[in-house]
Amino acid sequence: MKTELKINTTEAKQEFEGPVPELNPIMYPQSVAVIGASSAFGKWGQLILTNIVAGGFEGKIFPVNPKDTSLCGLPVYKRISDIPGPVDVAFITIPAGGVPAILEECGRKGVKGVVLITSGFSEIGSDGAALEREITEICKRWNIVLIGPNTMGIISSYAKLFATGTHTRPRPGGVAFVSQSGNLGNQLVHWASQQGIGISQFIGSGNEAMLGCADYLEYLEQDENARIIMLYMENVGDGRRLLSVARRVNQKKPVIVLKGGRTSAGKAAAASHTGSMGGEFLIFRAACSQAGILNVDAPAELLDLSAGFSSLPIPKGDRVGIVTLGGGWGVVTADACNENGLRVPDIPERIVERLNKYLPPFWSKRNPLDLVGTRDTEVPIVAVEELLKWDGIDAVISLGIIGRTELVRLLVNSTRGVDPTASVELLDEIEGFVEKYEETYVATMVDLMEHYQKPVIGVSLTRTDRGTVRAVDGKRYSGVFYQTPETAVNVLARMVDYSRFLNRQGNPSS
Amino acid sequence: MKTELKINTTEAKQEFEGPVPELNPIMYPQSVAVIGASSAFGKWGQLILTNIVAGGFEGKIFPVNPKDTSLCGLPVYKRISDIPGPVDVAFITIPAGGVPAILEECGRKGVKGVVLITSGFSEIGSDGAALEREITEICKRWNIVLIGPNTMGIISSYAKLFATGTHTRPRPGGVAFVSQSGNLGNQLVHWASQQGIGISQFIGSGNEAMLGCADYLEYLEQDENARIIMLYMENVGDGRRLLSVARRVNQKKPVIVLKGGRTSAGKAAAASHTGSMGGEFLIFRAACSQAGILNVDAPAELLDLSAGFSSLPIPKGDRVGIVTLGGGWGVVTADACNENGLRVPDIPERIVERLNKYLPPFWSKRNPLDLVGTRDTEVPIVAVEELLKWDGIDAVISLGIIGRTELVRLLVNSTRGVDPTASVELLDEIEGFVEKYEETYVATMVDLMEHYQKPVIGVSLTRTDRGTVRAVDGKRYSGVFYQTPETAVNVLARMVDYSRFLNRQGNPSS
Repeated sequence: MKTELKINTTEAKQEFEGPVPELNPIMYPQSVAVIGASSAFGKWGQLILTNIVAGGFEGKIFPVNPKDTSLCGLPVYKRISDIPGPVDVAFITIPAGGVPAILEECGRKGVKGVVLITSGFSEIGSDGAALEREITEICKRWNIVLIGPNTMGIISSYAKLFATGTHTRPRPGGVAFVSQSGNLGNQLVHWASQQGIGISQFIGSGNEAMLGCADYLEYLEQDENARIIMLYMENVGDGRRLLSVARRVNQKKPVIVLKGGRTSAGKAAAASHTGSMGGEFLIFRAACSQAGILNVDAPAELLDLSAGFSSLPIPKGDRVGIVTLGGGWGVVTADACNENGLRVPDIPERIVERLNKYLPPFWSKRNPLDLVGTRDTEVPIVAVEELLKWDGIDAVISLGIIGRTELVRLLVNSTRGVDPTASVELLDEIEGFVEKYEETYVATMVDLMEHYQKPVIGVSLTRTDRGTVRAVDGKRYSGVFYQTPETAVNVLARMVDYSRFLNRQGNPSS
Repeated sequence: MKTELKINTTEAKQEFEGPVPELNPIMYPQSVAVIGASSAFGKWGQLILTNIVAGGFEGKIFPVNPKDTSLCGLPVYKRISDIPGPVDVAFITIPAGGVPAILEECGRKGVKGVVLITSGFSEIGSDGAALEREITEICKRWNIVLIGPNTMGIISSYAKLFATGTHTRPRPGGVAFVSQSGNLGNQLVHWASQQGIGISQFIGSGNEAMLGCADYLEYLEQDENARIIMLYMENVGDGRRLLSVARRVNQKKPVIVLKGGRTSAGKAAAASHTGSMGGEFLIFRAACSQAGILNVDAPAELLDLSAGFSSLPIPKGDRVGIVTLGGGWGVVTADACNENGLRVPDIPERIVERLNKYLPPFWSKRNPLDLVGTRDTEVPIVAVEELLKWDGIDAVISLGIIGRTELVRLLVNSTRGVDPTASVELLDEIEGFVEKYEETYVATMVDLMEHYQKPVIGVSLTRTDRGTVRAVDGKRYSGVFYQTPETAVNVLARMVDYSRFLNRQGNPSS
């Protein structure tokens, strides 16, 4: 199967059309084997097995090793051939030298896919490279789809399959992530989990002996769970094919790329890391830009963009309305908008008059809408909706509502502590109220986005335990609350870029 | 006192030398009055009083209002003149119209300083401006030092005086912060507190009727608790004097400025917020740059820099050593270094040979030092020290040691959950070990910084509950662990800028 792919790529067709890699048996398996399963804390065979079991995988799990009889309460098989019934995917963690023989066994058993965790292949030099060619040939001969070697694992959240060494388990969601660095990838998945960003798949592509980023893109193109795709790449490989595929996929789902090895220092580091020299970054970036593919410079930005792109409607233009409780935050947000090429248009008299009903005479009466610290719970919502209603605005940034809750809690706590006459009921009521208001506010923002098809980006102005993305049951969009205005503005600016790309393609944002 | 200051400023002397504002009675008072004190939850008179009491202020606290007899367990005085004994500082929260009469009372009582929380002065228009002139005259006549009006309060951590509406109480430390926006300022103080950044003073300067940023800089210049100074400004005022003072102060303590109203949108917002148009930003920035004053674009960056400048030795050059557990993070960090003008020099054979003793043959053997996921607890420390020892390196960025602890905990938890044969003692021991190792690691980094006088900047690669700055008892430096490499690199690059400025001044970093 992959041979055909390789042939096509060298012909460098503008629009590649080959068979999509058969990754479903790996990403949505009925049965998995862990070859090299172990009870030794911290060994790969233990990390992977306990993660799959603890993550609640609902298919069959077959630990394989020659010594144990039971692991995690499951029977252990001495050899792959001893496993009763078919095996969709085998996770292999045994030392490199034993891998060829094990792959032959997998082939005879009819295993469809292998995730080869084991390292000691092309990344360690020419001997390893020879071994890597050997195992790739074995897989091709047996029609085994190979991820890795030297991968730190995969996640398929909708299949409840968490097969990485990092025991973090993000909620299912629309963001697919392919990473050439397993370590960086796993850590980013952990950040995603901490921020409430839903992940559909994570694939650590490792040495990419058989499948590379372009192949994974093609697979994710047709997987409905993946709504946006993040790539971390050091080695572009066949750049022409990658860009051709990415260009096509990017018209259906945003593709966001972080290229490691952009500079001489980064390139030197990447060379020692993956054994391959990255291409010229400027050319790469120009090509991406032409293809509408978003490039970012830092891992955290990948996540910031993922949160926005997977949770918000795409804005149709660059005109931003800003709602703030305090003037200073409005100023820095307006500055950030202008510096990122976004406009902050002045508002019509109609909106001023509507808000005059709620606010003291010295409110800003312009965009940013500075609600001068109002404690009215209705007006922050009215202000957002008035802006969304107006056809002079494409997106709203709303500052400080969610963050205020934490500050109210601090105040309630110290009032409890020092005021012996304070009404306990009143304080309880206030705490309950702010919590409930937060929920209502998130749900209202999600409804407003659905109704007006314009994004509302929240800024919490404080670090909260609730994460960046707040999903609302049964809704297409989610509340998004970044900690800082500059993050919200950057994400919005990149969404505007993407919207312009779609428009240039005659493919307006939906 | 302030009259003289004003006259001097209009003469625009290059090096201003006037009397330093007498802020000690406000920042280190023996007794405070809260005029307008209240038990009504959320009113300013309640916010300020409960915060001062709950914050543990050890001097005398006198609530003043005509109605109550007791608040927070303290006797309430009907009039200021009823207070027994002297009052260093009065916090005033009553409506604007009553302020002139109250200030006269304060004057007769001999109150030395007033923090005027009340709004409704120049920020609301010409009537308010007239009232502001009136109250400023009253204060001058009585020799009262006035902060505000329209300020959201002050903090003086070493005096245990927390007198803001936001009940966040950062630990005492070296960072002083003056903000023209109270709302933005208070929120940043809260971030500082969440990140473990020690604050010496916070001053919300409000409308600056009497004292402006230049005055506060002069005060903080001579206050030993303030080791670095952050400014948030929208209105520069007398730019020549400000820059002259800032230039002088910046040679003793770094001054970091965030200017709001840089763009037309931000300027419009700032105008409506403070009633004054900001100067031309490009001129301002060029002047700052000439004076070695660090300019930042975002509030979060103020804090990032504060953490670094207050906790780490200043680097003497731009050569960075990088230590990483995983290659990908080394690549993105090296890229970020090069893109921020920092060098990542290759290491001498001596260091390679030293680390060969600890690591498998396929470790990177270059800078970044990729320790290829080693679980050896000694080698990450050895690697940092070897780099610090070498005179080819000015600073070290160390990635992932602190963050790994959280990932180990996740693994321990799922092992507990799914492996019935796992040794409970072993798992407890592992958890205890990683926790203890983290403490040891932080303490060792602090000792190494003291010994070699070079900064070691940590990157946690995960969001931890422990904050960015980890102080070690009795030590001059603290451990600093940013979540992302790009933050660490940016801070280091700005520290290198500052170091170069000091060198140009013939004032090498200490």
